[in-house]
Amino acid sequence: MEKPIVSILMGSDSDLVVMNEAVKVLKEFQIFYEVLILSAHRVPEETAKFAKTAQKRGIKVIICGAGGAAHLAGVVAALFPLPVIGVPIKSSTLNGLDALFSIVQMPPGVPVATVGINSAKNAALLAVQILATGEKELQRKIEEYKNKLAKTVSEKNTKLQKIGINKYLKEVKK
Amino acid sequence: MEKPIVSILMGSDSDLVVMNEAVKVLKEFQIFYEVLILSAHRVPEETAKFAKTAQKRGIKVIICGAGGAAHLAGVVAALFPLPVIGVPIKSSTLNGLDALFSIVQMPPGVPVATVGINSAKNAALLAVQILATGEKELQRKIEEYKNKLAKTVSEKNTKLQKIGINKYLKEVKK
Amino acid sequence: MEKPIVSILMGSDSDLVVMNEAVKVLKEFQIFYEVLILSAHRVPEETAKFAKTAQKRGIKVIICGAGGAAHLAGVVAALFPLPVIGVPIKSSTLNGLDALFSIVQMPPGVPVATVGINSAKNAALLAVQILATGEKELQRKIEEYKNKLAKTVSEKNTKLQKIGINKYLKEVKK
Amino acid sequence: MEKPIVSILMGSDSDLVVMNEAVKVLKEFQIFYEVLILSAHRVPEETAKFAKTAQKRGIKVIICGAGGAAHLAGVVAALFPLPVIGVPIKSSTLNGLDALFSIVQMPPGVPVATVGINSAKNAALLAVQILATGEKELQRKIEEYKNKLAKTVSEKNTKLQKIGINKYLKEVKK
Amino acid sequence: MEKPIVSILMGSDSDLVVMNEAVKVLKEFQIFYEVLILSAHRVPEETAKFAKTAQKRGIKVIICGAGGAAHLAGVVAALFPLPVIGVPIKSSTLNGLDALFSIVQMPPGVPVATVGINSAKNAALLAVQILATGEKELQRKIEEYKNKLAKTVSEKNTKLQKIGINKYLKEVKK
Amino acid sequence: MEKPIVSILMGSDSDLVVMNEAVKVLKEFQIFYEVLILSAHRVPEETAKFAKTAQKRGIKVIICGAGGAAHLAGVVAALFPLPVIGVPIKSSTLNGLDALFSIVQMPPGVPVATVGINSAKNAALLAVQILATGEKELQRKIEEYKNKLAKTVSEKNTKLQKIGINKYLKEVKK
Amino acid sequence: MEKPIVSILMGSDSDLVVMNEAVKVLKEFQIFYEVLILSAHRVPEETAKFAKTAQKRGIKVIICGAGGAAHLAGVVAALFPLPVIGVPIKSSTLNGLDALFSIVQMPPGVPVATVGINSAKNAALLAVQILATGEKELQRKIEEYKNKLAKTVSEKNTKLQKIGINKYLKEVKK
Amino acid sequence: MEKPIVSILMGSDSDLVVMNEAVKVLKEFQIFYEVLILSAHRVPEETAKFAKTAQKRGIKVIICGAGGAAHLAGVVAALFPLPVIGVPIKSSTLNGLDALFSIVQMPPGVPVATVGINSAKNAALLAVQILATGEKELQRKIEEYKNKLAKTVSEKNTKLQKIGINKYLKEVKK
Repeated sequence: MEKPIVSILMGSDSDLVVMNEAVKVLKEFQIFYEVLILSAHRVPEETAKFAKTAQKRGIKVIICGAGGAAHLAGVVAALFPLPVIGVPIKSSTLNGLDALFSIVQMPPGVPVATVGINSAKNAALLAVQILATGEKELQRKIEEYKNKLAKTVSEKNTKLQKIGINKYLKEVKK
Repeated sequence: MEKPIVSILMGSDSDLVVMNEAVKVLKEFQIFYEVLILSAHRVPEETAKFAKTAQKRGIKVIICGAGGAAHLAGVVAALFPLPVIGVPIKSSTLNGLDALFSIVQMPPGVPVATVGINSAKNAALLAVQILATGEKELQRKIEEYKNKLAKTVSEKNTKLQKIGINKYLKEVKK
Repeated sequence: MEKPIVSILMGSDSDLVVMNEAVKVLKEFQIFYEVLILSAHRVPEETAKFAKTAQKRGIKVIICGAGGAAHLAGVVAALFPLPVIGVPIKSSTLNGLDALFSIVQMPPGVPVATVGINSAKNAALLAVQILATGEKELQRKIEEYKNKLAKTVSEKNTKLQKIGINKYLKEVKK
Repeated sequence: MEKPIVSILMGSDSDLVVMNEAVKVLKEFQIFYEVLILSAHRVPEETAKFAKTAQKRGIKVIICGAGGAAHLAGVVAALFPLPVIGVPIKSSTLNGLDALFSIVQMPPGVPVATVGINSAKNAALLAVQILATGEKELQRKIEEYKNKLAKTVSEKNTKLQKIGINKYLKEVKK
Repeated sequence: MEKPIVSILMGSDSDLVVMNEAVKVLKEFQIFYEVLILSAHRVPEETAKFAKTAQKRGIKVIICGAGGAAHLAGVVAALFPLPVIGVPIKSSTLNGLDALFSIVQMPPGVPVATVGINSAKNAALLAVQILATGEKELQRKIEEYKNKLAKTVSEKNTKLQKIGINKYLKEVKK
Repeated sequence: MEKPIVSILMGSDSDLVVMNEAVKVLKEFQIFYEVLILSAHRVPEETAKFAKTAQKRGIKVIICGAGGAAHLAGVVAALFPLPVIGVPIKSSTLNGLDALFSIVQMPPGVPVATVGINSAKNAALLAVQILATGEKELQRKIEEYKNKLAKTVSEKNTKLQKIGINKYLKEVKK
Repeated sequence: MEKPIVSILMGSDSDLVVMNEAVKVLKEFQIFYEVLILSAHRVPEETAKFAKTAQKRGIKVIICGAGGAAHLAGVVAALFPLPVIGVPIKSSTLNGLDALFSIVQMPPGVPVATVGINSAKNAALLAVQILATGEKELQRKIEEYKNKLAKTVSEKNTKLQKIGINKYLKEVKK
Repeated sequence: MEKPIVSILMGSDSDLVVMNEAVKVLKEFQIFYEVLILSAHRVPEETAKFAKTAQKRGIKVIICGAGGAAHLAGVVAALFPLPVIGVPIKSSTLNGLDALFSIVQMPPGVPVATVGINSAKNAALLAVQILATGEKELQRKIEEYKNKLAKTVSEKNTKLQKIGINKYLKEVKK
């Protein structure tokens, strides 16, 4: 693989299923990425080292997924000068509200761009949008992506108008 | 003023005090910006028109501040292909939790980069970081900014060590 | 089907199971309706066009079901001058509280008539009540409906008094 | 005053300041209304009698404002066959969240059209929209109202563009 | 059955499984009771009539179980002069928090004695304690009950000390 | 004063202003009471001793007001066999939600009759209702009280009808 | 077993599965412990006696797990002069938020060291850290433990880099 | 001052008023301490260095106060092997709930001993209790402290019994 420009970090391998949605989007947009398991609490020094050296390695955006007292994004944002995107991961107790608060409520001076709970897909799309601010070709791809999204909704609606709600519901249940 | 590359929108002029913090940061980083009052609910068509034409006008990042059922950021993100940053504004009833949920919980495909409640300052810093992914000079300025932040904390700590907590508290209260 | 006077919109076909409860009620009251999948975020322009032209097409009430940062009802209400009813849909993370806040906390000037989380049935009944303000015949039907509701409760109670709680519970479990 | 078609109820005279916003809107739209203090808990029988006879008296919509365990709207909705609009009133303890839940989470069969916390203004606008489903003239007035709303936002924006944010903020503070 | 002194009401037969725990306790204490399905929203007049006549029929305590916008206890308390106990029932959306707020936050003058979410057992025990304030024999039975409770805990602890945690866990899982 | 039958406890003298509302009600109903500052956490043994001996001293109902991790009611209920009423006190951080959860969510076997946040008045009325289950004279007084409540509401409504909302609001503001 | 220095208490044997995680950690660190079922509400006097005599028996730290209105830790902390650690247990209604508030919001003067919902493992590690403040050998073991934790994370990351996300996910699912 | 064994850290000098309560307690117990302003986000490397070297400098317990996305305690706990106590600081938006979740919900392996929102006093008392596990003299002082606490409550109660609630309330208001 070529030199990555987006890093996807997660605090535990149990977050991998959720964060894989981000991987798929970056692949679709043909953006070089890397995926790492790094914990602000269990390997704090590796995490700090990673965050301090990422820019030099060519990383332009870092996506961090974490649950509970989710410090990973904040800790990385403290040391990395470019955008950090945080994905609050839903865990078994507080529905991801704890992770959302821990990621979004950063103090003045150290922003984390927070997306919805478990929204790794949106995190990756946001990374693409960020990269697109400096790259015309990506802007075009985003517009294509948006058109595809719109088309999917329109097709579903067309189908619904055609076959009616009862048939549609039966197909969905299959 | 030169051609703006960041737009700061807000749903009501009562949000202006909070959003002015974003203005100050963009000024400090010498980034050209514009400030508009635009409401997803009261002037929906102007808002849509704005969002659809912003990129052509050279806008690279849009910051949206709104309170309550805060739809402004989402509505703009639906039409603007580059990053949209949402600032949940605290209003008099639900402490800004309503605005936070309305901004951050976007559906797959349409991300909004959400910052903390009332954190317009962080919204602007995030905008700067986003622009910096394509501009070396801004990266340098961000590092300067971070150093200044760190220096302020260190100076406060040095002062605390020197004059002790009681004197420090008296000075703060003045 | 004759010309619809109530529109049922939803942001995604995954909301169809919930929103079908509204369809059933409108059928029962013999009110002409239409069902559409339309997304404020994915097909914003179709949604806007729909909202702006609905009244001309004879639509008198619009019911919107959406989850998460549920903007559909608000976006439609911004452009449609007659009543918009919002149904917050429960999703996998915040139990529908995010959708409830996103729908109910609308700014002054642009109301959305909000019903309970997943209460598509009540949304449709409210639509019927709204239409009944101008139509005597519907008022009579609503009273019949209320009587039927009351009768169901009374019959259950009568049965409970007759067979006792243990037998009743066994029948329920079947 | 002529025969009212909208009733504004509230559980306590301490809700009068909030509910007066509804009165102003109805006046502006020249809709005949009545205002009553009626409590589901303190005068349950008068409340029930009111709800049962309101339709015969010509009432088409009832707006109910209440705080805490806000039962007024639900109790009225149980007996009145036409639309009931609920306004959750913010009280000193739970920020109005208790009233919101008590009003919006109605059981299947008995809807209450809920608006935002303290949003009496929106409650009245919703009442107007409901009445407008059967009355062309009101539809025209609503569109005027929406245009006025839009104009206010546009004028504020124009002013902001003209005098700049600093001057604007000074004027607001006055 | 003899003349009941405690009434157990519920808004829907889906609450019967939860409320049956109250029935079991009253049986254990040999207190005469009745169980009714009565809805504040679907059969408001029967409910009002019930509440107004209950005291004359000899009812001394009423237990009301309800979910969502749980108005049953409040509506009964408005008309019944003796203690009303409310049991918030957990439903599928807000975990019972809506019912808890709707029951416990009653206005000054009309108390409802609220127990924990789904705690029908405690509701019945509270009813017994209330009756015991006027009846020595019941006080003795409550003390017996408390001793039995204590004994159960002590026996579990003794068993844990004897067989150790691993064996204990295996037995629990069976 | 004669021998008290209701005890009013509170965890701190800062709760006295709130709990004084309970005192006033008991005085109005001429019920003998005592008021004590007792803390489950600071004077646990005195509290336990109090709870164990209260019944012997003739106490029939205990009202406990506490804020934060409000354990007072639960600790007393563990040792006192008759009804314990809990008043969650609002403190400066979580709006009384912490106290509400700490009081109402008692385990099976040990109920606390919980009233609304800061609702000391309702706690006392509930105590009166409990005592009234065994005392006809109190039942009569409660009905008088309810009638007085109703009359107050009716008088306010009559006044509102007479002088209109604008004059009424001016008088309230005075 | 030798004389225990850490006590693990829980309010019910249904908490045993969660609290067993604490047992495992103490075993791993070779710290002598005891496990007891003790309820602040069902066996209040045994609980008080336990708390008052624990220090004399050599207990240095007490870990208390409880759900709902979780008073166990607070009641023990009132009588035991050394550290009490509270573990909020998630129950079926409020996701453990009730237990968290009941444990963490203790009044000034009586702290409980609270860990995350269901985090019995962390409670035991905290107990070890507390004991380590007076015992060099334990400090060494904690560092070993931390290194092991770090190693586990690093190994997972190494594996991820080696086999890639798709293979990794397949292995996790097995 | 002699060599400190307890460190009090805070993320900002605006937390100093709250954290000063911890200072007062440590002074009262004659425990040597230090107070530092250190931010996990603004001076991450100094914070990491501090945490890694604290034990060598003789620090046995670290108390961390922070608000919002409060990462300070977690970041320190990742690197310091002995107990870390977290004080969630209430800020202007979410009442301290964000800080509470960010501090208490730590992942397995890295505990933070969390106290109540703004409870710096309890944090210091917990630190004293921790140190007391290895130091008999401190145990004696804690018991004295508890007795003093108890005495204060008892004296307030005695006064209340003597002068009555009305006089007491007047004195409190002064």
